[in-house]
Amino acid sequence: MLLRIDHVGIACRSLDAAVERYTSVFGLTVVSEEVNAEQGVREAMLATAEEALPSRGGAAPPRCPPGYIQLLEPLGDDTPVGRFLARRGEGIHHVGYAVPDVVEALETFGGRGVRLIDKRPRHGSMGASIAFLHPADLGGVLTELVQPRAARETLCPG
Amino acid sequence: MLLRIDHVGIACRSLDAAVERYTSVFGLTVVSEEVNAEQGVREAMLATAEEALPSRGGAAPPRCPPGYIQLLEPLGDDTPVGRFLARRGEGIHHVGYAVPDVVEALETFGGRGVRLIDKRPRHGSMGASIAFLHPADLGGVLTELVQPRAARETLCPG
Repeated sequence: MLLRIDHVGIACRSLDAAVERYTSVFGLTVVSEEVNAEQGVREAMLATAEEALPSRGGAAPPRCPPGYIQLLEPLGDDTPVGRFLARRGEGIHHVGYAVPDVVEALETFGGRGVRLIDKRPRHGSMGASIAFLHPADLGGVLTELVQPRAARETLCPG
Repeated sequence: MLLRIDHVGIACRSLDAAVERYTSVFGLTVVSEEVNAEQGVREAMLATAEEALPSRGGAAPPRCPPGYIQLLEPLGDDTPVGRFLARRGEGIHHVGYAVPDVVEALETFGGRGVRLIDKRPRHGSMGASIAFLHPADLGGVLTELVQPRAARETLCPG
């Protein structure tokens, strides 16, 4: 049901400084930068390499979907990420797992006793459908479920 | 240089309770359980699905390496994870990225000004060579580099 680790969300005070640091140290590429007013963040998505699997019979090698580092700057102090920064400082804010169907996943995990922060999916980065699960039921880990916009396309980049 | 998100490391008070929770909620499989005395932890690795890419010409579909949830219980209060729990409670402790060559990666990232917690690789989960980078230079994120034991095998599970 969890296909992969889609991303880690990292809370930062300055998005520009964090992007500069993560791109210059790791040579990562910014693939998306957007403001999500509903979540109170300005954010950038940086992609890891799209790992190539061995090719067969001379075809182009199939490529696995990348993982993302999601850098999050709060739009104000009174936002979830703003409060996180005040309480804990910069660092990992949440982890996101890719799922084939976020509605089905919410139903399944909710049925197993995990409290849902979002009962219905909402709009996430790069057009994904996302929903958050409550950290109190998952060992203190704020957990996001991510159904990429075009799951099929993501899974079949070739 | 960063191939993918290899794992998230989650600090927990009781490994057994955390394993029970993560396996029963998400249906994940424990693929390794070990004690790492040097790092002062008892830990379990749970794997996400090995995502299948579309097959071509009737061959078995190639599979991407899984991501791991690494659950970490400290062997005592005076260990890195024990101190983390006392300071911050249960939650995400670090993130690990897969790299093709951890020695080369340390040289590269160190040369770009990131302080190295480990100047040389040490023994990590499932026989991997690993090294930690200092959170102060990476936006508060304790960052691990992971070269799986048999990178080739991991990349080509078929």
